[in-house]
Amino acid sequence: MGKLVKIAVDAMGGDYAPREIVKGAVQAAREDGTEIVLVGREDAIQRELKRYDVSALPIRVVNADEVMREGESPVAALRLKPGASILVATRIVKEGEADAVVSVGYTGAVMVSAIEILGKLEGIRRPSAGGLLCGFAPNTVVFDMGSNADCKPRDLLTFAAIGSVVARKMLRITNPTVALLSNGSEEGKGNLLVKRAYQLFRESNLNFIGNVEGDDIPAGKANVVICDGFTGNILIKFCEGLGDQLAKRLRVTLDKHLSRTEIDAISTDLFSLTHVADVSGGGMIYGVNGVVWIGHGRSKAPQVAESIHQVKLVVEANLIGAMRAELTKMQELKE
Amino acid sequence: MGKLVKIAVDAMGGDYAPREIVKGAVQAAREDGTEIVLVGREDAIQRELKRYDVSALPIRVVNADEVMREGESPVAALRLKPGASILVATRIVKEGEADAVVSVGYTGAVMVSAIEILGKLEGIRRPSAGGLLCGFAPNTVVFDMGSNADCKPRDLLTFAAIGSVVARKMLRITNPTVALLSNGSEEGKGNLLVKRAYQLFRESNLNFIGNVEGDDIPAGKANVVICDGFTGNILIKFCEGLGDQLAKRLRVTLDKHLSRTEIDAISTDLFSLTHVADVSGGGMIYGVNGVVWIGHGRSKAPQVAESIHQVKLVVEANLIGAMRAELTKMQELKE
Repeated sequence: MGKLVKIAVDAMGGDYAPREIVKGAVQAAREDGTEIVLVGREDAIQRELKRYDVSALPIRVVNADEVMREGESPVAALRLKPGASILVATRIVKEGEADAVVSVGYTGAVMVSAIEILGKLEGIRRPSAGGLLCGFAPNTVVFDMGSNADCKPRDLLTFAAIGSVVARKMLRITNPTVALLSNGSEEGKGNLLVKRAYQLFRESNLNFIGNVEGDDIPAGKANVVICDGFTGNILIKFCEGLGDQLAKRLRVTLDKHLSRTEIDAISTDLFSLTHVADVSGGGMIYGVNGVVWIGHGRSKAPQVAESIHQVKLVVEANLIGAMRAELTKMQELKE
Repeated sequence: MGKLVKIAVDAMGGDYAPREIVKGAVQAAREDGTEIVLVGREDAIQRELKRYDVSALPIRVVNADEVMREGESPVAALRLKPGASILVATRIVKEGEADAVVSVGYTGAVMVSAIEILGKLEGIRRPSAGGLLCGFAPNTVVFDMGSNADCKPRDLLTFAAIGSVVARKMLRITNPTVALLSNGSEEGKGNLLVKRAYQLFRESNLNFIGNVEGDDIPAGKANVVICDGFTGNILIKFCEGLGDQLAKRLRVTLDKHLSRTEIDAISTDLFSLTHVADVSGGGMIYGVNGVVWIGHGRSKAPQVAESIHQVKLVVEANLIGAMRAELTKMQELKE
């Protein structure tokens, strides 16, 4: 391997900051050999670091006196709290002093910091989130599952470019198939957004296979499934909810057949298949000019370490470089 | 009970017409005492009727020489094939000679016949379809799951009026709660359609409880969940697809613990919970001025009999009268 991956970690964000964040970062440095820059109140971080033997680990601390809190306007905080940990951590990435930023803090603040400090990739109107929707289709990523409730056809096209790179680089699929999620598989099916996007997709350099329906997602019919973030969010929540109800039902049904331990194992399996977002502990913000990971606020040390591990893989795969190239190619084709 | 319910059955529609349609109709007449008007080629129907002892049953035949076939333009057929069985059957309802029409034929033709011959209820722009989405929530109906991919806020309001009547009359829920399906439960969440509909819903006479998320559907958080038909279709298909994948998975997992028969029972249960549309065999067209049922083309006699049974309940509940009243009330409130 080449040089160490260096990750800026917002030590002040999340429900269990700074204790669990520092603990998770130490674990990641120890296990993965990742270089860690802990960003936040130096005294609080040092106090936590004293709990571990970190003398041999590649960890350093950068002071940041302020913290952005859930509910604050992140845009206002950019001006009013320039010393907020997430801003300082993101600036470290911008300046090339780290390869990525990881935060389990206030999502809006991480998002705004990423957009304002790192900027967006070419052609991107708003960043997106995506990945596996359910565990039954390990080779299918869905975009957008972020906050883009209202999309234009061109937004869907950029999600598809991003999704294709994720499928190629992270799932190692050579020529990932791309489909639009619709209410019918034939061309001409769909709402206005999908119908318009269909034309754009067909004229693009994507490996576009047409429309897929809801049941085609768990069946893994396409590697990259594209929808607006409204639909994506409803689907991922529905999947979780269905998983919960099924688990309850199976507990009752299997009670007389299996032991408690066996039922627990089936429940755990079912949970991991239907709660992919919970299992991954967070996700990337895609479409910004740098690697930014938002973890769940409730993350504890193991989830923080896992987040850092995921991000390390993203950096090593040079995902952002590949996305930049893909989006530029798409742009050129258009002109 | 008062007078017999009289149902016009399109004997020529569906993959197994007329044999299985006639057989199912005979069964319904025998079991439910429903009066049946079989509409189609008289000779073909009489030939089928000879297979049963129908002398004591309230069945009559109305001749219709033509049939509308999948793929034909139903609008053109209105002019070109005035003697088509579905048109004749629907006209019988229009003239008050039957209380409802049942067809397992070409969906587009049934829809157009219903709209053109019976007309739409006040305030309805396009008819809708809806009902249970998954078996985990037996007290939750979802509208639209039909073909209304692009909706206006006012369309969602009429779906909610219809859904409320279905919940009240068919599920016997006194004051059904109504919610908008969204990507967040707080007011202000949603795509543009949902945000605009939110205001309309709040000012309406509906028992509106705000937004619900995807996981709230299987959890049964509201009795009536409203979305556009694009989202509704994707959800119902996704539910079916997830059910299929789960059944496959459980077969493997449970193989070493349970007998084949026990596993089959669990699979059947899972199927009925996640394939509600398949189990019901079809559904009502809501928003037209009469009771119209479209069953699946692959329906055989038991499904035809069950469809007729469902429709009888709808007629007895005076669903259309209640919808007319609800939509008129909504209209008056607006003015």
